[in-house]
This record gives sequence, structure tokens and C-alpha cells, in this order.
Amino acid sequence: MAELIEPRLLKGFRDFLPADERERQRIEEILGRTFAAFGFEPIDTPILEYTEILLGKGGGETDKQIYRFEDQGDRDVAMRYDLTVPFARFMALHLHELPLPFKRFHIAKVFRGENTQRGRYREFVQCDFDIVGSDSASADFEIVLLMDRSFRAIGVDDVRIHLSHRGVFNSLLARLGIADRGEQVLRTVDKMRKIGETEVRSQLEKIAGAAATDTIMAYITRGPDNESTLESMRSLAPDAAQDLRRLSDVLQAAKTVGIADRIVLDPSVTRGLDYYTGIVFETFLTALPEIGSVCSGGRYNNLAGLYTKERLPGVGTSIGLDRLIAGLEELSVTGTQTGGAEAIVLCSDDAMTGRYHAIADELRTTGLRVDVYPECRKLGQQYAFAEKKDIPVAVIVEGAGETVTVRDLRSRTNDEGLTVGDAARAIQALTT
Amino acid sequence: MAELIEPRLLKGFRDFLPADERERQRIEEILGRTFAAFGFEPIDTPILEYTEILLGKGGGETDKQIYRFEDQGDRDVAMRYDLTVPFARFMALHLHELPLPFKRFHIAKVFRGENTQRGRYREFVQCDFDIVGSDSASADFEIVLLMDRSFRAIGVDDVRIHLSHRGVFNSLLARLGIADRGEQVLRTVDKMRKIGETEVRSQLEKIAGAAATDTIMAYITRGPDNESTLESMRSLAPDAAQDLRRLSDVLQAAKTVGIADRIVLDPSVTRGLDYYTGIVFETFLTALPEIGSVCSGGRYNNLAGLYTKERLPGVGTSIGLDRLIAGLEELSVTGTQTGGAEAIVLCSDDAMTGRYHAIADELRTTGLRVDVYPECRKLGQQYAFAEKKDIPVAVIVEGAGETVTVRDLRSRTNDEGLTVGDAARAIQALTT
Repeated sequence: MAELIEPRLLKGFRDFLPADERERQRIEEILGRTFAAFGFEPIDTPILEYTEILLGKGGGETDKQIYRFEDQGDRDVAMRYDLTVPFARFMALHLHELPLPFKRFHIAKVFRGENTQRGRYREFVQCDFDIVGSDSASADFEIVLLMDRSFRAIGVDDVRIHLSHRGVFNSLLARLGIADRGEQVLRTVDKMRKIGETEVRSQLEKIAGAAATDTIMAYITRGPDNESTLESMRSLAPDAAQDLRRLSDVLQAAKTVGIADRIVLDPSVTRGLDYYTGIVFETFLTALPEIGSVCSGGRYNNLAGLYTKERLPGVGTSIGLDRLIAGLEELSVTGTQTGGAEAIVLCSDDAMTGRYHAIADELRTTGLRVDVYPECRKLGQQYAFAEKKDIPVAVIVEGAGETVTVRDLRSRTNDEGLTVGDAARAIQALTT
Repeated sequence: MAELIEPRLLKGFRDFLPADERERQRIEEILGRTFAAFGFEPIDTPILEYTEILLGKGGGETDKQIYRFEDQGDRDVAMRYDLTVPFARFMALHLHELPLPFKRFHIAKVFRGENTQRGRYREFVQCDFDIVGSDSASADFEIVLLMDRSFRAIGVDDVRIHLSHRGVFNSLLARLGIADRGEQVLRTVDKMRKIGETEVRSQLEKIAGAAATDTIMAYITRGPDNESTLESMRSLAPDAAQDLRRLSDVLQAAKTVGIADRIVLDPSVTRGLDYYTGIVFETFLTALPEIGSVCSGGRYNNLAGLYTKERLPGVGTSIGLDRLIAGLEELSVTGTQTGGAEAIVLCSDDAMTGRYHAIADELRTTGLRVDVYPECRKLGQQYAFAEKKDIPVAVIVEGAGETVTVRDLRSRTNDEGLTVGDAARAIQALTT
């Protein structure tokens, strides 16, 4: 006999057993339904693309993380590492088939061969939603509203959406005469939650000098409420009138819709990535600030500029589904319904196989989920199996199969001599 | 300005635009619900695995098709080319966490770098369901029943499930003294639909000689009904009593459950793959025989033998979802509901942005899917947009935003002066 192969997984990759997979599907389904309620439409793109397409926007950091290889036809190909770059390519390719503004969502796996030290996975699910083809406060606000509504739909009411505007920050940097070091400054400020204020200040002083750093630190410090924060931003970056107006419009819409208490104007939010040009946001679970932002994004002024001359402004965001689900587990906001079978038809006579399946099939027509034990083993063994699978009710077929006993496996009580129709009602009563 | 990158796709890969993606999700959701109704549980596995794991069962043909490369850690890795091999590895790894018999389904993408000439894709979705840990007629039959119920749930009533038993065929080959050429014979018979009877006979004669070929051709020829076919198999392979009994039990169960008219005992079904050991089946859409089997599978006696000494008998099948969906389109059995927005709130004053979103949000609480046009353009342009997105109703906010007009975009009639609550009822009436 050949030597066994060890059934191991690659580091950073994992299996989903039924309970976890059900929970993931439950969350994805709620999110999909919520996005559709806002008129967002689902799309999908290939996991493999030409490397040239995927690395268009990537920096050096991405290059190292990407799964890249030559395929059978000697093409330089790679697995997608996010859903934004493929979406940009998608828009360039299908621009004339899609009505603009186009609102899409995409929930799918992405791959990054990054360090797994910090509990990160190399295969994980992202959930992106974007509005492309409109540069308006209405589109900006709709993404914010949908973020809030998505978390509520999942059962997380207490979130804070921190938002700011890259244009205002850029205006401040220009005023300070350090626009050339803008990206460094933004990346440093973006690390605030990770490295703390003292370290940010020290790094900024090296980049921008002490005087500019004082102003930047004043700018990124929040006031007691959104109005005073906005006022402070306005006084430090008075040239950014249009961008400040946009922020003010979004905050006003939040008030009108009644979600202002969950919106935090926070000038320290910059999002390191250089393609954001307008509003930027991050979302925190109030009960779990330590897991960081579970939903981040912003406005970009030219999504598909690498692939088409058509200018496509847009705004969008990405939910890190794995981190969110881990958070939900910690908050015990996981689903109660299991999606598992509600009853199991037990087996005591092989000659009755067809009848067992006929009874199960009839029970299913009432909407019940019904398992059938496939072999005639001792009843105790079959009960133990049902218990392991969390199935609350057993159906024991009587005599020639015209009647059945319905057994509540939790209370261990029997209801005998039922027709299949009565059995269905008895099971419904026990399981709802 | 940098040169543009051509936004192209790899050959054999495709995007899913909203209409196609919605249809795929609709079918996957129906299938998932049907599997769950039978007590099958969802799982997922990684797309990337160690090559050693994935090529364990593959032959030379698979080697050439697999996407294989070295990752950043110099590991020899590959993208899964089916869902069976990863499932075998999954069972070996998690054997002691799972109650047996284990019934799982898995709907996910797989990758094969094969020739795309015949309209095949290199990235496609498979849908597998298996019962592992039981060798019984009940398990065999449950897979057959679930195949039938899955197709009915999708709206395809007229399918024929062709089934046979590899053990009976093997018994015949042993009796003919050509067991050593069994695999060649099975693979040749498996090509019947592709190359026709004359060519099969000619190839068989070269493999097995004229006399044996006559017997094989007699064996694989169906009688006028399942009973006579079974009788013919019994007379030609009398040593296979146990396997014939299994076939007979499955056919009997099909009669009891009332699906016998869709089951065809067909000894020409062999499934070329050598790991099948018992019942084997293929499924054809009566209206579209030319697309071939849309759901094939069978019984194997040792799923995970490459990875564990634990013997795991099982039975299962795989739906080729892309081929099936193409078939459904041809049969016009595609979904009628689009999942798109049912109404769109139009924009005529930027200062009202918050109010537009508040109205949309209130309408959504009644279960409606409601879009918001994000910019204040000419009404005609907004109507044209709604038409392109197949949105049947427009909501035009009146005056200060306390009342609205509901416009039926198909009949071009208005219902004016409605409260938001009345508007919700009006839209429901227009869209259901």
C-alpha cells in the first residue's frame, strides 16, 4: 500500500465546517439583501487575471503579496488580491453595457500571500459596494447610510462611522507648504490607532518640521461634536470651501435621515491609499474598538484610469467579512437558527427504505428540513447521531408505514399513531 | 500620461454582469435550500492547496490542466480542479469532528486550464453533494431523489436519471475473462453518446475480441422497461447478486416515492473515472439531450484512502452549474423576478438630498427595494436611467418633501399628493 499523504492545509488557509459556513452564508445573504434593497446589483469577476491588469494600481507592497505565476499558455497571471482593481477593469471593459451611475456589490474571495503572524488569512472574503459615475453628496451619503443599514441588518446597532475628506487635508498641507510630502504625512496619521499620538507626532516632526506638525495635530484632533470639528477644519483649511461644503452636506443628510448619532467627523481618518480624493471613512464596533475598522472606503475621482480614457468618479467601501464575523462571535450576535434538519426519519427495516424516503419527502413539502438515517442500526445509535447533528425531533415509522411516532429528542417524549400530515404539524409545533 | 492597459480577460474566464450574476445566485440559493431540506450541510475549502494533495487522485490528463505554481514560501501549490479531491482531504482532516454519516454540499468555483475550443470555461462553478460513511441502498437512493428534487425546485420537471452499477459490469467482465482490460472497456462504453454505437463496437473488438464485444453490446442495450433491463443484466452477470439486489432496491424505492417514471436503468452508463465502485448515474434534460449529462456521480468505496487509513464509503454527485444554467436559458426556465429596485426616488433639488434618502429608507422598511438617483439632472434623463435599469416606478418628491408623486413608468400615469406610507402601498400595488 502506498504511503499516506498528510491531509494538511496551507498556512493562512482554512476549511469551513458546517456551522461556520452556515454563519458565513447567513451574513452574506443578509448583506446581499440589504444591498439589493438600495438598488445595488451583484457582479462577479474571475479569480485569475493578467498580472498586468492586477498590478496596475498596486505598489511594491502588493507585488510581494500577490500569487503570481505563468499559466499553461505562458501567460503572466495572478490571483486577485482585492475586488477594487478587478472592478476598475470590469468597468472599463463593460462601460457601454452598463447604465451610469452604476451601483454594484461584490462578495468574494481574495488572496494575499502576506505574513500570517497577526492572525490574518491568505484567503479571505471581501464585500465591496460602490457607486460609480456620480460625484455628489447624495452618492457619498448613500454609501454611509448603506454601511449603517448593513450593520443594523446583521444585528449590530452600535457602530460609529468615522469620516473625513482627503481634499480638506490636502488643502491644509498645501497651505503649510508640504504638499510634496503629503502621502508620507497621510500614511503617518493613518497609523494613529496602531502607534499612538506621541509616535505619530515624532514621525511627523521628521517629515514636516515642528511648526507644521503642531498645525497637523490640531487639525486631526476632534472637537466635542461634529459641528465644532467642522468649524476647526474650516479655520485651519479655509481654502477647501467646496470640500468642506461636501462634508457639511453629508452630515446634514445624516441628521435628516436620523443617523447623525452614529457619524463621527474625524479628521484623523485619512486612509493611506493614494487613490482616495474625497470623503474617506472607517467603521468601528463600539463594543470592540480593538479589532479596528470593519468597513473602510472613500471617494476616488478616476476608478478605471489605467484602462480607459473615460473618467469614472466613484465612492465605495469594503467590509472585511472575516474580521466582522469574528467580531460578531465575540459579541454573541451570531445567528440562532442553524439551518440544520428539524427532524430525522429513523431506520429499523431495510425493506422499508422507500417508505422512509416517501415520508421524509412528504414532510418536506410542508417546508420542514428532514434527514433520513441511511442504515438500520440500534435506535440508541441513531438518537446519538441526531443529537450530534442538533436535530430536535425523530420520526419512527410504525408497522407497515401508514403511521408514525414523533419523538421530541430533548424531552424524550413520544407522540404515537400519527398520520404523516399530523406528524408534520407536530414537528412544526416542536421546532418553532 | 501613461499608456492605457487593455482591459481584457484571460481566455476561458468571464465576468458576470448583474442579470447573469443574479440568475446564478438565484439557482445556487434554490439548490442550497433544497439540499438543506434533506439535511445536507454546507462546507467550504480553500481554492489553493498543496499540489501533492490535489494530484493524489488525478491522472495524467489532470496534471496538464491544473494551475500549479510555487508560492512565496517555495511551496508547490495548485488551484483546485474539482470539489471531490479537496472533500476527501477535508474528511481525512476533520474525521473526528464530524458525525458520520456526513452529508455535505459544496457550491464553489474550480479551475482547469483545459482547451476552451468546445465552449468550456477554465473557471466554472461546481455543485457537489455527497453522503459519506454509509454503504446502503438508502444513501444511494437519497442522492437519486435529491437529484430529482433539485431539478424540480429549479423548475425543470422533465429530467431522466440514467443509472447503473459498476460492480455488475465488473462481474460481467470477469466472467468474460477480460477484467484486466476493464478500465479500457468502461472508458470506451462511456463514449457511446459521443462516438456512437458502431465506433464503440469497433473499438471494443480491438480491446476484447468479437465474442466478448457481442456480449458487452447485449449487456449495455436497454430493454423496453427497467424490469426487463434488470432481467437482462441478471442473465449476463449472474455472479453479481448483491450488486443487482442493490440496483433493485434503489428502483423499488423510486417506485415507492413515485419518481420511477424519471429513472432509467441504463447499463451503458459507466462513468469513466476508476474510483467509482457501485451505483453510477447521469442526468439528462429531456428537452435538451444534446448538452449531455448535467448531473453525474456514483458510489465510491474509499473516499479518502490517500490521506487516512479510515475507510470512508460514500455516494455523491456533481451538478455542472454553468452547463445547467445555459440549458435553463435555452428552455426559458430562467427566473422572472429580477431582484432589481422596484422604485427610484428622483432628484430635483440638491438641498433635499437628506429628504430623498429618508423617504427611500422609509419605503425600504416595508420590504421594497428602492434606488435613489444621486444627482439633480433633467427628469427625462432620470426616467431613461430607470428604464435602462428596469425600475418600474419613480417617486417624485413634492414641495418641502412631506408628500410625493408615484409615477408608473410603464403606463406613464401619476398618483399625486401621497404620504410616504401611501406611496409604499401604491408601489406595492404596481409591482406585485
